[in-house]
Amino acid sequence: MIGGEWRQSESVDSFVALNPNEGRAIDRSFPVSSMADVEAALDAGVDASRQLRDVPAVVIADFLDDYADAIDADKRRIVDTAHDETGLPSSPRLEAELARTTDQLRQAARAVRDGSWVTATVDTASNVRSMYAPLDKPVIVFGPNNFPIAFNGVAGGDFAAAIAAGNPVIAKANPGHPGTTRYLAEAAVEAIGSSGVPASLVQFIYRVRGEDGLTFVSDERVGAVGFTGSKRGGLALKQAADGAGVPIYLELGSVNPVFLLEGALEARGEAIAADFYASCTLGAGQYCTNPGFVVVPTGEAGDRFVKKAGELFGQGEAETLLGEPGHLGDGVAILEKHGADLMVGGGLVEGDRFAFENTLLAITAPEFLDDATALQTEVFGPVSLLIRADSPEEMAAVAAAMEGNLTGGIYSDPSDEAAYAMVAADLRPRVGRLLNDKMPTGLAVVPSMNHGGPYPATGHPGFTAVGIPASIHRFAALYCYDNVMEHRLPAPLRNKNPTGSMWRFIDGNWSTDDLS
Amino acid sequence: MIGGEWRQSESVDSFVALNPNEGRAIDRSFPVSSMADVEAALDAGVDASRQLRDVPAVVIADFLDDYADAIDADKRRIVDTAHDETGLPSSPRLEAELARTTDQLRQAARAVRDGSWVTATVDTASNVRSMYAPLDKPVIVFGPNNFPIAFNGVAGGDFAAAIAAGNPVIAKANPGHPGTTRYLAEAAVEAIGSSGVPASLVQFIYRVRGEDGLTFVSDERVGAVGFTGSKRGGLALKQAADGAGVPIYLELGSVNPVFLLEGALEARGEAIAADFYASCTLGAGQYCTNPGFVVVPTGEAGDRFVKKAGELFGQGEAETLLGEPGHLGDGVAILEKHGADLMVGGGLVEGDRFAFENTLLAITAPEFLDDATALQTEVFGPVSLLIRADSPEEMAAVAAAMEGNLTGGIYSDPSDEAAYAMVAADLRPRVGRLLNDKMPTGLAVVPSMNHGGPYPATGHPGFTAVGIPASIHRFAALYCYDNVMEHRLPAPLRNKNPTGSMWRFIDGNWSTDDLS
Repeated sequence: MIGGEWRQSESVDSFVALNPNEGRAIDRSFPVSSMADVEAALDAGVDASRQLRDVPAVVIADFLDDYADAIDADKRRIVDTAHDETGLPSSPRLEAELARTTDQLRQAARAVRDGSWVTATVDTASNVRSMYAPLDKPVIVFGPNNFPIAFNGVAGGDFAAAIAAGNPVIAKANPGHPGTTRYLAEAAVEAIGSSGVPASLVQFIYRVRGEDGLTFVSDERVGAVGFTGSKRGGLALKQAADGAGVPIYLELGSVNPVFLLEGALEARGEAIAADFYASCTLGAGQYCTNPGFVVVPTGEAGDRFVKKAGELFGQGEAETLLGEPGHLGDGVAILEKHGADLMVGGGLVEGDRFAFENTLLAITAPEFLDDATALQTEVFGPVSLLIRADSPEEMAAVAAAMEGNLTGGIYSDPSDEAAYAMVAADLRPRVGRLLNDKMPTGLAVVPSMNHGGPYPATGHPGFTAVGIPASIHRFAALYCYDNVMEHRLPAPLRNKNPTGSMWRFIDGNWSTDDLS
Repeated sequence: MIGGEWRQSESVDSFVALNPNEGRAIDRSFPVSSMADVEAALDAGVDASRQLRDVPAVVIADFLDDYADAIDADKRRIVDTAHDETGLPSSPRLEAELARTTDQLRQAARAVRDGSWVTATVDTASNVRSMYAPLDKPVIVFGPNNFPIAFNGVAGGDFAAAIAAGNPVIAKANPGHPGTTRYLAEAAVEAIGSSGVPASLVQFIYRVRGEDGLTFVSDERVGAVGFTGSKRGGLALKQAADGAGVPIYLELGSVNPVFLLEGALEARGEAIAADFYASCTLGAGQYCTNPGFVVVPTGEAGDRFVKKAGELFGQGEAETLLGEPGHLGDGVAILEKHGADLMVGGGLVEGDRFAFENTLLAITAPEFLDDATALQTEVFGPVSLLIRADSPEEMAAVAAAMEGNLTGGIYSDPSDEAAYAMVAADLRPRVGRLLNDKMPTGLAVVPSMNHGGPYPATGHPGFTAVGIPASIHRFAALYCYDNVMEHRLPAPLRNKNPTGSMWRFIDGNWSTDDLS
């Protein structure tokens, strides 16, 4: 979908999606685009940026709302197709994911109408005024395989943020769910028509060759890139984009360590084991925030937790994976090679569908600390490594050895206060989101959320991929106006508050007043 | 100055500064550090970050205030040394620069005491809370040669922002003014003692070899890097830091185009020529915001402006440069080779001191557009290129051909409204700061300032190197707390407003209230 219309791809190849529940290809093929398609999309994206200079914010907001409505109207087909292509359950999972997606689009629309996200800042004495503004170039969004709707390049969080900032988006669909993406894109086309935004506000390409992807993100016509996916793919794109001065935002996943303190396990070890099992196997463990590491004290309370978790992992049925499960066996083998003991699972589930046994491994904290880098290999599935620690000091040492992660959690009781302080001090700077007494897989779409964290979980510790308005700022430039005549200023910087209720930072204070 | 004390450098070489007014070396030598010094500074910086976790914000604020006082107390020696090492006039230039520096430090102290910069954000329904926090690792700051005090690595804007965010700083002094930096660092030591911050909050190294600089910024112990200086040096450091996932903020200068519209020239062409001359030759033209490009209409009003500017540039005495002037001749030769005609100046000033004639070149807009990349070579000195355009459309085409710049200006009269709209549309997205009817060299240190701009003027269009609180956010991580018990939260996120007046973003609105 390039330049406002569905056109025949100038393709170099084609591909098919797989049905993971049946372990077979879906009988419909999609194009792998050539650079000719990429070039056309970039040119149309630049044109759309120019047109957007004159499009009022309210029209962008209308598009976002209309798009949410169009997705709701086509809900059944989108959910069914996503189910076929990903194996994820239609209900409640994919239906909830679709509802989250339309909620994100509507939140973005509200942010655009409200306008406070632009952070209009005025110093009246010097008459210098500034605000966030569009990049004036298209944003490329790469979606991951594990959220076919809510993180889809053509409908998800990065998409909503980039559009809300006033930029056109060129989505690179995830090859795992091309049909889902197509139906979402059809809904986008409908909303483009009803809202009156530029026709190339949304474009999308099913797939490009790896080397063409690098050329794509490093083109000078690109304003920024949002990428959610694998570390290997993301870091290759980062190198290309960085070299061209193109900002790139990555969400590369992590192992999300959870620390269970002694008092909490004594008081409610069984319930925590049930929490852990549910979180680690949710969506077959294919969450960026999956609890892949659990640090458990040695001793009786810890042993009881491990025993209970082992029972739950051993008894529970393995959910269907998004794709072929070979990489999970490879990941488990790496952990075993570096000293982890396999406790439960570890093998493929027999049959046609793509599935891997719910799996637990264990290692002692000193062994982990001896080989901490290799043992932080992310295994993207229903797999977790239990680390047994002799003391809060040893737990803190494990926390200090962690790479940058999206989340870190601590379960504690009032008796654990000293241990909590010790572990939290070393864990806090290594994670984007610190949790108490809950598993990390839940992710509220609220302004205070941080779905981000230090490198290599993402590319920058100051940004979040989820949460409005913060996620919008990634796709904006800072525009300053020095002594510019009032009638030439954009509406948010004029003396009169353009909505009557827009928050602006005036002479060091937040205010909704007009400037006098 | 490493690990809280002045120590003998494990140096690999030594260097001397030059006195530009006398064209000779200053008789005092400084060390070029080995990696042993760098390693020691990084280790001490990491220790300081750990200690800072328990240091209240008010102590950081005390340090910043005490440091400003200590600089004021040693003002004479600092200004005199800077004059010797840079050739810049002591009065008013260096005295004003010192006053700006202490003002920046005191503004940073106020921001730390006030706490609103952390952008405490709360969603009460989900009990998710977030704020900006230190990087938990030291920040390296590289200062430029042209502002020996206000952008000094050990005292300037990046320094103040990094410290305000709660990070230790390791400054790499600019080799152009090592003595100035030493005296500033002595004032920092005094303030460290009086305020009680960790001894390694501020460290500094005079110089490292180029290859060691790359190793330095790509070390995993580094939280972020601030660099102000040449494009070549900055982009080499960016590549190294990017590869290691270390955020780096660059301020690489630009040509700062100024567009003079017909009506403005008719009404006040002579005054604008005087403005232009003063701005372009200020500090011998060695400003990042120097107006290196002026776009002038063809025709009588434009001719009168060009004639007047030529007279002023021809008559005015050339100020002393920071260093040997050879690169200016090279730069002018590049512009001439690509079609620019030399109008005035263009040669070295005879004598011992470092000086280059005030220089104007001219070219037509079509010629510029034919070779726009080479003709945007920045010539860092009292040199400007006049571009003669036949129409507002041609001016807009010149604007559209500009690379990313820190600033862009337009002089206009009421009769120029249509031309203004045309030029501004293409200029706006290519500059960080858009000015009306003033030259770009003035830079108010206010919250709404943007001293930044699109690549390659900087490395990211969303950040500014000047202006508090925005410049502080560059050196912060986003910390989110999900369901964390209230007594374990940092003060800005607790229910009670910690200062009674801290601005917090609560459930979508800015407020200074307590949470109920």
